[in-house]
Amino acid sequence: MSLENKITLKKLKTIPTDGGQVLHAIKNSENIINNLGEVYFSSIGHNVIRAWKFHKKMTLNLIVPVGSVKFVFYFEEKNKFLEYEIGEKNYCRLTVKPKIWFGFQGLDIKQNLVMNIADLEHDQNEMKKKQTKEIEYNWEKR
Amino acid sequence: MSLENKITLKKLKTIPTDGGQVLHAIKNSENIINNLGEVYFSSIGHNVIRAWKFHKKMTLNLIVPVGSVKFVFYFEEKNKFLEYEIGEKNYCRLTVKPKIWFGFQGLDIKQNLVMNIADLEHDQNEMKKKQTKEIEYNWEKR
Repeated sequence: MSLENKITLKKLKTIPTDGGQVLHAIKNSENIINNLGEVYFSSIGHNVIRAWKFHKKMTLNLIVPVGSVKFVFYFEEKNKFLEYEIGEKNYCRLTVKPKIWFGFQGLDIKQNLVMNIADLEHDQNEMKKKQTKEIEYNWEKR
Repeated sequence: MSLENKITLKKLKTIPTDGGQVLHAIKNSENIINNLGEVYFSSIGHNVIRAWKFHKKMTLNLIVPVGSVKFVFYFEEKNKFLEYEIGEKNYCRLTVKPKIWFGFQGLDIKQNLVMNIADLEHDQNEMKKKQTKEIEYNWEKR
């Protein structure tokens, strides 16, 4: 599978309403997810880095309804990184197939919230982790 | 169906992490939702009221990961209201069966975000709406 096929970026609809807005996330008819495993949020402070994680089986659907978050994907075989900044100002869904190392960083000074709509429930045995410094990446650059 | 059986309040887990936290929303094994219809967010400003709505078929799973939101349910037959305030400080999921009038109001001065994990996709034909003033309720009281 090519690098690009592992990750799909989809711009999502936002609809202004009286005193707020509606933000789309996922619809059954998009056929993105066959089985709902779990939905959860991760909040992450400004400049905080959470890396590296690897899912053996789980497909992730990542959405950032609050703030802005940088996701970095590391393709071990090619020693190549792919980076995406998504959030309120670039409201998108990242669908991430399993078997890829990734990490993320909070960019907004106030609040950053990631939602994951996953096709499996969280399970430590389905994951691998590495320390941030174990994969050399310059988290300072923007 | 009794009033209370229409609405289920469930306290959800929050797990502190380095520079943030993980907030549970829903797991497949809870058997709350048979079919994922749609996930979407509604942001709602401070004191803004969005009322009244009625779903003919949709079951809602409402979670407030940011701010605080008051939900008011109106049981027409009994002319009775049920009120819930959920949000960051009372992190819960409200499961709401169809055929009940409800409205909601943003309580936090900064930001309020509602997530709905619904068993159907949004469809105007599946909904009824009334103007806020059509059901007499004192939105000022806290």
